[in-house]
Amino acid sequence: MIRILGLDPSLSSTGWGIIEAENNRVRYVADGFIPTDTKAPIAERLATINKTLHDVIEFYKPDEAAIEQVFLNSNAVSTIKLGMARGVVIMTPAMFQIPVTEYEPNKVKKAVVGVGKAEKKQVETMVKILLPGCSPKNNDAADALAIALCHFQFRNAYGTKK
Amino acid sequence: MIRILGLDPSLSSTGWGIIEAENNRVRYVADGFIPTDTKAPIAERLATINKTLHDVIEFYKPDEAAIEQVFLNSNAVSTIKLGMARGVVIMTPAMFQIPVTEYEPNKVKKAVVGVGKAEKKQVETMVKILLPGCSPKNNDAADALAIALCHFQFRNAYGTKK
Repeated sequence: MIRILGLDPSLSSTGWGIIEAENNRVRYVADGFIPTDTKAPIAERLATINKTLHDVIEFYKPDEAAIEQVFLNSNAVSTIKLGMARGVVIMTPAMFQIPVTEYEPNKVKKAVVGVGKAEKKQVETMVKILLPGCSPKNNDAADALAIALCHFQFRNAYGTKK
Repeated sequence: MIRILGLDPSLSSTGWGIIEAENNRVRYVADGFIPTDTKAPIAERLATINKTLHDVIEFYKPDEAAIEQVFLNSNAVSTIKLGMARGVVIMTPAMFQIPVTEYEPNKVKKAVVGVGKAEKKQVETMVKILLPGCSPKNNDAADALAIALCHFQFRNAYGTKK
Protein backbone atom coordinates (compact mmCIF):
# COMPACT_ATOMS: atom_id res chain seq x y z
CA MET A 1 0.00 0.00 0.00
CA ILE A 2 1.32 3.39 -0.99
CA ARG A 3 0.10 6.96 -0.57
CA ILE A 4 0.67 9.47 -3.36
CA LEU A 5 0.50 13.25 -2.98
CA GLY A 6 -0.34 15.19 -6.16
CA LEU A 7 0.53 18.89 -6.29
CA ASP A 8 -0.66 21.72 -8.54
CA PRO A 9 1.35 24.80 -7.49
CA SER A 10 0.33 28.45 -7.82
CA LEU A 11 0.88 31.50 -5.66
CA SER A 12 -2.82 32.24 -5.20
CA SER A 13 -4.15 28.70 -4.82
CA THR A 14 -1.99 25.56 -4.68
CA GLY A 15 -4.00 22.35 -5.12
CA TRP A 16 -3.16 19.12 -3.31
CA GLY A 17 -4.66 15.64 -3.48
CA ILE A 18 -3.91 12.32 -1.79
CA ILE A 19 -4.70 8.87 -3.18
CA GLU A 20 -3.92 5.42 -1.86
CA ALA A 21 -2.76 2.65 -4.21
CA GLU A 22 -2.49 -1.09 -3.73
CA ASN A 23 -1.40 -3.16 -6.72
CA ASN A 24 -3.72 -2.02 -9.53
CA ARG A 25 -6.38 -0.51 -7.29
CA VAL A 26 -6.54 3.10 -6.25
CA ARG A 27 -8.78 5.02 -3.85
CA TYR A 28 -9.40 8.61 -2.88
CA VAL A 29 -8.08 9.83 0.48
CA ALA A 30 -8.27 13.64 0.60
CA ASP A 31 -7.87 16.84 -1.39
CA GLY A 32 -7.79 20.59 -0.89
CA PHE A 33 -6.31 23.90 -1.96
CA ILE A 34 -4.25 26.58 -0.23
CA PRO A 35 -5.58 30.10 -0.81
CA THR A 36 -3.20 32.95 0.06
CA ASP A 37 -3.92 36.58 0.87
CA THR A 38 -3.27 38.55 -2.33
CA LYS A 39 -2.57 41.66 -0.21
CA ALA A 40 0.14 39.97 1.89
CA PRO A 41 3.86 40.18 0.97
CA ILE A 42 4.94 37.39 -1.38
CA ALA A 43 7.32 35.94 1.27
CA GLU A 44 4.41 35.50 3.69
CA ARG A 45 2.20 33.93 1.01
CA LEU A 46 4.95 31.41 0.23
CA ALA A 47 5.37 30.68 3.96
CA THR A 48 1.61 29.98 4.18
CA ILE A 49 1.88 27.49 1.29
CA ASN A 50 4.85 25.77 2.94
CA LYS A 51 3.22 25.66 6.39
CA THR A 52 -0.09 24.23 5.13
CA LEU A 53 1.58 21.67 2.89
CA HIS A 54 3.84 20.72 5.79
CA ASP A 55 0.76 20.03 7.93
CA VAL A 56 -0.92 18.03 5.10
CA ILE A 57 2.20 15.85 4.75
CA GLU A 58 2.53 15.33 8.50
CA PHE A 59 -1.14 14.35 8.74
CA TYR A 60 -1.51 12.08 5.68
CA LYS A 61 2.10 10.80 5.53
CA PRO A 62 2.37 10.26 1.73
CA ASP A 63 5.20 8.02 0.48
CA GLU A 64 5.68 9.68 -2.90
CA ALA A 65 4.78 13.01 -4.48
CA ALA A 66 4.12 14.19 -8.04
CA ILE A 67 3.97 17.66 -9.55
CA GLU A 68 3.19 19.06 -12.98
CA GLN A 69 6.10 20.44 -14.97
CA VAL A 70 5.79 24.13 -15.31
CA PHE A 71 3.76 25.95 -17.90
CA LEU A 72 6.12 28.55 -19.36
CA ASN A 73 4.23 31.81 -19.53
CA SER A 74 5.27 34.35 -22.16
CA ASN A 75 5.09 36.97 -19.41
CA ALA A 76 8.41 36.85 -17.49
CA VAL A 77 6.91 38.33 -14.31
CA SER A 78 4.19 35.64 -14.23
CA THR A 79 6.82 32.98 -14.92
CA ILE A 80 8.95 34.11 -11.99
CA LYS A 81 5.94 34.19 -9.64
CA LEU A 82 4.87 30.71 -10.67
CA GLY A 83 8.49 29.61 -10.30
CA MET A 84 8.61 30.94 -6.74
CA ALA A 85 5.45 29.06 -5.74
CA ARG A 86 6.66 25.96 -7.54
CA GLY A 87 10.02 26.07 -5.76
CA VAL A 88 8.35 26.11 -2.35
CA VAL A 89 5.84 23.39 -3.32
CA ILE A 90 8.39 20.97 -4.81
CA MET A 91 10.74 21.54 -1.86
CA THR A 92 8.23 20.79 0.91
CA PRO A 93 7.98 16.99 0.34
CA ALA A 94 11.79 16.92 -0.02
CA MET A 95 12.00 18.33 3.54
CA PHE A 96 10.48 14.97 4.57
CA GLN A 97 12.73 12.95 2.21
CA ILE A 98 9.67 12.18 0.07
CA PRO A 99 10.69 11.78 -3.60
CA VAL A 100 8.93 14.11 -6.07
CA THR A 101 8.39 13.14 -9.72
CA GLU A 102 7.63 15.76 -12.38
CA TYR A 103 5.18 15.20 -15.27
CA GLU A 104 4.46 17.28 -18.35
CA PRO A 105 0.91 18.74 -18.34
CA ASN A 106 0.01 16.80 -21.51
CA LYS A 107 1.15 13.55 -19.91
CA VAL A 108 -1.14 14.15 -16.93
CA LYS A 109 -4.14 14.82 -19.20
CA LYS A 110 -3.34 11.82 -21.37
CA ALA A 111 -3.03 9.55 -18.31
CA VAL A 112 -6.37 10.65 -16.88
CA VAL A 113 -8.55 11.54 -19.88
CA GLY A 114 -6.79 9.62 -22.65
CA VAL A 115 -5.88 12.67 -24.74
CA GLY A 116 -3.18 15.27 -24.17
CA LYS A 117 -5.35 18.28 -24.99
CA ALA A 118 -8.25 17.70 -22.62
CA GLU A 119 -10.31 20.53 -21.11
CA LYS A 120 -10.22 21.25 -17.37
CA LYS A 121 -13.80 20.04 -17.04
CA GLN A 122 -12.98 16.68 -18.68
CA VAL A 123 -10.10 16.19 -16.25
CA GLU A 124 -12.38 16.83 -13.28
CA THR A 125 -15.05 14.44 -14.62
CA MET A 126 -12.50 11.65 -15.10
CA VAL A 127 -11.00 12.23 -11.64
CA LYS A 128 -14.49 11.70 -10.16
CA ILE A 129 -14.98 8.51 -12.19
CA LEU A 130 -11.55 7.08 -11.35
CA LEU A 131 -11.88 7.97 -7.67
CA PRO A 132 -15.44 7.07 -6.58
CA GLY A 133 -16.73 9.10 -3.65
CA CYS A 134 -14.42 12.00 -4.39
CA SER A 135 -15.75 15.51 -4.99
CA PRO A 136 -12.73 17.81 -5.45
CA LYS A 137 -12.87 21.08 -3.48
CA ASN A 138 -12.07 23.12 -6.60
CA ASN A 139 -10.26 22.98 -9.96
CA ASP A 140 -6.80 23.14 -8.38
CA ALA A 141 -7.60 20.23 -6.07
CA ALA A 142 -8.99 18.23 -9.04
CA ASP A 143 -5.79 18.91 -11.01
CA ALA A 144 -3.69 17.77 -8.05
CA LEU A 145 -5.65 14.49 -7.88
CA ALA A 146 -5.16 14.07 -11.65
CA ILE A 147 -1.39 14.47 -11.14
CA ALA A 148 -1.46 11.85 -8.36
CA LEU A 149 -3.39 9.47 -10.68
CA CYS A 150 -0.86 10.08 -13.46
CA HIS A 151 1.96 9.14 -11.09
CA PHE A 152 0.07 6.01 -10.04
CA GLN A 153 -0.18 4.91 -13.69
CA PHE A 154 3.44 5.64 -14.56
CA ARG A 155 4.93 4.05 -11.43
CA ASN A 156 2.82 0.94 -12.08
CA ALA A 157 3.85 0.78 -15.74
CA TYR A 158 7.47 1.24 -14.70
CA GLY A 159 7.06 -1.45 -12.03
CA THR A 160 5.74 -3.91 -14.66
CA LYS A 161 8.70 -3.34 -16.97
CA LYS A 162 11.20 -4.15 -14.26
CA MET B 1 21.06 47.40 17.56
CA ILE B 2 19.72 45.50 14.58
CA ARG B 3 20.92 42.54 12.57
CA ILE B 4 20.31 42.45 8.81
CA LEU B 5 20.45 39.35 6.63
CA GLY B 6 21.27 39.97 2.95
CA LEU B 7 20.35 37.26 0.43
CA ASP B 8 21.49 36.58 -3.14
CA PRO B 9 19.47 33.57 -4.35
CA SER B 10 20.46 31.05 -6.98
CA LEU B 11 19.93 27.32 -7.35
CA SER B 12 23.63 26.47 -7.54
CA SER B 13 24.99 28.89 -4.94
CA THR B 14 22.84 31.17 -2.76
CA GLY B 15 24.87 33.87 -1.01
CA TRP B 16 24.07 35.14 2.49
CA GLY B 17 25.59 37.88 4.62
CA ILE B 18 24.88 39.28 8.08
CA ILE B 19 25.69 42.79 9.29
CA GLU B 20 24.94 44.54 12.54
CA ALA B 21 23.78 48.16 12.60
CA GLU B 22 23.54 50.66 15.41
CA ASN B 23 22.43 54.18 14.50
CA ASN B 24 24.72 55.16 11.61
CA ARG B 25 27.39 52.54 12.30
CA VAL B 26 27.55 49.15 10.71
CA ARG B 27 29.79 46.15 11.26
CA TYR B 28 30.40 42.79 9.62
CA VAL B 29 29.09 39.67 11.38
CA ALA B 30 29.26 36.71 8.97
CA ASP B 31 28.81 35.59 5.37
CA GLY B 32 28.70 32.44 3.31
CA PHE B 33 27.19 30.64 0.35
CA ILE B 34 25.13 27.48 -0.08
CA PRO B 35 26.45 25.21 -2.83
CA THR B 36 24.07 22.48 -4.02
CA ASP B 37 24.79 19.22 -5.80
CA THR B 38 24.07 19.83 -9.50
CA LYS B 39 23.39 16.10 -9.94
CA ALA B 40 20.71 15.98 -7.21
CA PRO B 41 16.98 16.42 -7.99
CA ILE B 42 15.89 20.06 -7.91
CA ALA B 43 13.54 19.41 -4.94
CA GLU B 44 16.49 18.18 -2.85
CA ARG B 45 18.67 21.12 -3.88
CA LEU B 46 15.93 23.52 -2.79
CA ALA B 47 15.54 21.64 0.51
CA THR B 48 19.32 22.03 1.08
CA ILE B 49 19.03 25.79 0.54
CA ASN B 50 16.06 26.00 2.95
CA LYS B 51 17.74 23.85 5.61
CA THR B 52 21.05 25.75 5.56
CA LEU B 53 19.36 29.14 5.57
CA HIS B 54 17.13 27.96 8.41
CA ASP B 55 20.25 27.10 10.44
CA VAL B 56 21.90 30.45 9.59
CA ILE B 57 18.80 32.33 10.79
CA GLU B 58 18.52 30.26 13.96
CA PHE B 59 22.18 30.85 14.75
CA TYR B 60 22.54 34.56 13.92
CA LYS B 61 18.95 35.63 14.68
CA PRO B 62 18.65 38.51 12.18
CA ASP B 63 15.82 41.05 12.72
CA GLU B 64 15.31 41.99 9.08
CA ALA B 65 16.17 40.51 5.70
CA ALA B 66 16.79 41.96 2.24
CA ILE B 67 16.90 40.31 -1.18
CA GLU B 68 17.63 41.49 -4.71
CA GLN B 69 14.70 41.75 -7.07
CA VAL B 70 14.97 39.19 -9.76
CA PHE B 71 16.96 39.49 -12.94
CA LEU B 72 14.55 38.48 -15.71
CA ASN B 73 16.43 36.15 -18.00
CA SER B 74 15.37 35.95 -21.64
CA ASN B 75 15.55 32.16 -21.26
CA ALA B 76 12.27 31.00 -19.71
CA VAL B 77 13.78 27.80 -18.28
CA SER B 78 16.51 29.80 -16.49
CA THR B 79 13.87 32.25 -15.24
CA ILE B 80 11.77 29.47 -13.75
CA LYS B 81 14.82 27.87 -12.06
CA LEU B 82 15.89 31.18 -10.57
CA GLY B 83 12.27 31.77 -9.53
CA MET B 84 12.19 28.43 -7.71
CA ALA B 85 15.37 29.20 -5.76
CA ARG B 86 14.16 32.71 -5.07
CA GLY B 87 10.81 31.46 -3.76
CA VAL B 88 12.52 29.21 -1.23
CA VAL B 89 15.04 31.91 -0.21
CA ILE B 90 12.48 34.71 0.29
CA MET B 91 10.15 32.33 2.17
CA THR B 92 12.70 31.10 4.72
CA PRO B 93 12.97 34.34 6.78
CA ALA B 94 9.15 34.64 6.59
CA MET B 95 8.97 31.23 8.37
CA PHE B 96 10.53 33.10 11.33
CA GLN B 97 8.27 36.17 10.89
CA ILE B 98 11.32 38.16 9.74
CA PRO B 99 10.27 40.87 7.24
CA VAL B 100 11.99 40.72 3.83
CA THR B 101 12.51 43.84 1.69
CA GLU B 102 13.21 43.59 -2.04
CA TYR B 103 15.65 45.89 -3.89
CA GLU B 104 16.32 46.36 -7.59
CA PRO B 105 19.86 45.24 -8.57
CA ASN B 106 20.74 48.79 -9.72
CA LYS B 107 19.64 50.19 -6.36
CA VAL B 108 21.96 47.80 -4.54
CA LYS B 109 24.93 48.77 -6.72
CA LYS B 110 24.14 52.45 -6.38
CA ALA B 111 23.87 52.18 -2.60
CA VAL B 112 27.20 50.40 -2.26
CA VAL B 113 29.37 51.70 -5.14
CA GLY B 114 27.60 54.96 -5.96
CA VAL B 115 26.66 54.03 -9.52
CA GLY B 116 23.92 51.68 -10.76
CA LYS B 117 26.05 49.93 -13.37
CA ALA B 118 29.00 48.83 -11.22
CA GLU B 119 31.04 45.71 -11.97
CA LYS B 120 30.96 42.71 -9.61
CA LYS B 121 34.58 43.42 -8.63
CA GLN B 122 33.77 47.03 -7.64
CA VAL B 123 30.90 45.81 -5.45
CA GLU B 124 33.21 43.40 -3.64
CA THR B 125 35.89 46.07 -3.14
CA MET B 126 33.35 48.50 -1.64
CA VAL B 127 31.89 45.79 0.60
CA LYS B 128 35.39 45.22 2.04
CA ILE B 129 35.88 48.98 2.58
CA LEU B 130 32.47 49.50 4.20
CA LEU B 131 32.83 46.40 6.39
CA PRO B 132 36.40 46.38 7.75
CA GLY B 133 37.71 42.93 8.62
CA CYS B 134 35.38 41.22 6.18
CA SER B 135 36.66 38.96 3.42
CA PRO B 136 33.63 37.52 1.60
CA LYS B 137 33.77 33.77 0.96
CA ASN B 138 32.93 34.27 -2.73
CA ASN B 139 31.08 36.57 -5.15
CA ASP B 140 27.64 35.43 -4.02
CA ALA B 141 28.48 36.11 -0.37
CA ALA B 142 29.85 39.56 -1.33
CA ASP B 143 26.63 40.33 -3.23
CA ALA B 144 24.58 39.26 -0.21
CA LEU B 145 26.55 41.62 2.04
CA ALA B 146 26.03 44.41 -0.53
CA ILE B 147 22.26 43.78 -0.36
CA ALA B 148 22.39 43.93 3.46
CA LEU B 149 24.31 47.25 3.23
CA CYS B 150 21.75 48.60 0.75
CA HIS B 151 18.95 47.76 3.20
CA PHE B 152 20.88 49.43 6.02
CA GLN B 153 21.11 52.66 3.99
CA PHE B 154 17.46 52.68 2.91
CA ARG B 155 16.02 51.82 6.31
CA ASN B 156 18.16 54.59 7.87
CA ALA B 157 17.08 57.11 5.24
CA TYR B 158 13.48 56.09 5.82
CA GLY B 159 13.98 56.31 9.60
CA THR B 160 15.32 59.87 9.28
CA LYS B 161 12.32 60.98 7.24
CA LYS B 162 9.87 59.76 9.88
